[in-house]
Amino acid sequence: MKNILITIEYDGTNFCGWQRQPQKRSVQGEIERVLSELCRQPIKINGTSRTDAGVHALGQRASFTADFGIPVERIQRAANNLLGSSTDGLRNAGKPGDVYIKKVEEVPLDFHARFNAVAKKYVYLIKNTDEVNVFNKNYCYSLPDKLDLDAMVRAAEDLVGTHDFKCFQAAGGKKLETTVRTIYSLEIKEKILDEKWKGRTIQLEVTGDGFLYNMVRIITGTLIDVGRGKIQEDGMGRILESRSRKLAGHTAPPQGLYLSEIYYSEEGKGK
Amino acid sequence: MKNILITIEYDGTNFCGWQRQPQKRSVQGEIERVLSELCRQPIKINGTSRTDAGVHALGQRASFTADFGIPVERIQRAANNLLGSSTDGLRNAGKPGDVYIKKVEEVPLDFHARFNAVAKKYVYLIKNTDEVNVFNKNYCYSLPDKLDLDAMVRAAEDLVGTHDFKCFQAAGGKKLETTVRTIYSLEIKEKILDEKWKGRTIQLEVTGDGFLYNMVRIITGTLIDVGRGKIQEDGMGRILESRSRKLAGHTAPPQGLYLSEIYYSEEGKGK
Repeated sequence: MKNILITIEYDGTNFCGWQRQPQKRSVQGEIERVLSELCRQPIKINGTSRTDAGVHALGQRASFTADFGIPVERIQRAANNLLGSSTDGLRNAGKPGDVYIKKVEEVPLDFHARFNAVAKKYVYLIKNTDEVNVFNKNYCYSLPDKLDLDAMVRAAEDLVGTHDFKCFQAAGGKKLETTVRTIYSLEIKEKILDEKWKGRTIQLEVTGDGFLYNMVRIITGTLIDVGRGKIQEDGMGRILESRSRKLAGHTAPPQGLYLSEIYYSEEGKGK
Repeated sequence: MKNILITIEYDGTNFCGWQRQPQKRSVQGEIERVLSELCRQPIKINGTSRTDAGVHALGQRASFTADFGIPVERIQRAANNLLGSSTDGLRNAGKPGDVYIKKVEEVPLDFHARFNAVAKKYVYLIKNTDEVNVFNKNYCYSLPDKLDLDAMVRAAEDLVGTHDFKCFQAAGGKKLETTVRTIYSLEIKEKILDEKWKGRTIQLEVTGDGFLYNMVRIITGTLIDVGRGKIQEDGMGRILESRSRKLAGHTAPPQGLYLSEIYYSEEGKGK
């Protein structure tokens, strides 16, 4: 019996989200289909984060245990060939190629991709320009009115630390014992990506020990509302204290959100 | 009665191509649906190029004549709102946003977007790297082995000018009187796009008076085959003379191709 941890990049555009759902195309379902073929048995994987439809990942993680014949070091290449994510474009014809397995490693049997995670990092991309670009549409949130970046940075500072983040939780998530979470860092900065991203691109990067349902998207929408002058930059303390979703800002759309990195403690990964 | 010329940008990923087809999502169909709603009558447009599924456009053109109530200067914004290509991301929620109308202008009644075109420019993007990036998959052709750019540039020179390009014509196109075309320029150069495009990006830019079915993609594939050492850099003359598709190289996939610009003579556009 082996326990395998995989690291995954995906474009969330054409998925119903991470989680397997009947009759729908999910990231989990795609990966399970391919691993089941390679391992010649039904494989079920445990992902770290259940990203929503349209949300992307640069470093999602998932683990599974199974007794299988294929050598571990061959899984990555074989799985990517089946997914249409070969390095050679000639081999990918006709396959979607929107999921790429970045790494496959054997871990101790008691390791679990979700339960052993100690922190997660998300990135959110905002395009602050009045130019339309159809090629960006699924990969960022475009806003034409100039955002006050300094105000957003100052408001973000008040969210760092351990707080009850209930005001930033969407309805519809699973029942939780507590809505207290710790944000280790929350940075907002201007970023120039490339010629296609004419105008200004603002990147939000947030690391925390865990996030409530839609919490990153509601924090992003709230900070954007600060940047638009609809919420005051010194208002975060009051919003947190209220524990009321109504006082926080709008929910930024999924297209701009990227699950960037999952952190494990070294002992947790058995190293 | 008015004659209207529109300029269009689109992401070809989720279309069956430009041309209207029953039960399928085409770029032409999307635009006609929206214009028909705005003009309160069935609108049929004439596009300049029938791009294939997966092929993108930065500057496609189309024209239509109709007698309608909405002021011409209001069409662009109203159509983009319906398409989900508003400048304001807040307004686009739930709409695909993969077609954007860049310009709407009134032209003389005898003007026709296709018949009056005197030249077209296409761009093809090649990513020459062994790194996989799911976000690039639909927007370029990825090849891991280092291409000999100098050899490609030299071979390209022999294609410029007026030639019988039958060897670069795919089966399945419409019946033509002649396969002689003129390529005004064919440039290949390295291009750094952005941080996401790790490794080398090669851009091919070709301008001509017209192109046969799949001609740009077969020329690109042939020049790539020169870059891989599979076809000799001084072999273009012989391939052209053969008039045989079998001697030319492979067909590069549609994802890397962009219809970049349509040119009209100034008198043709009534200026």
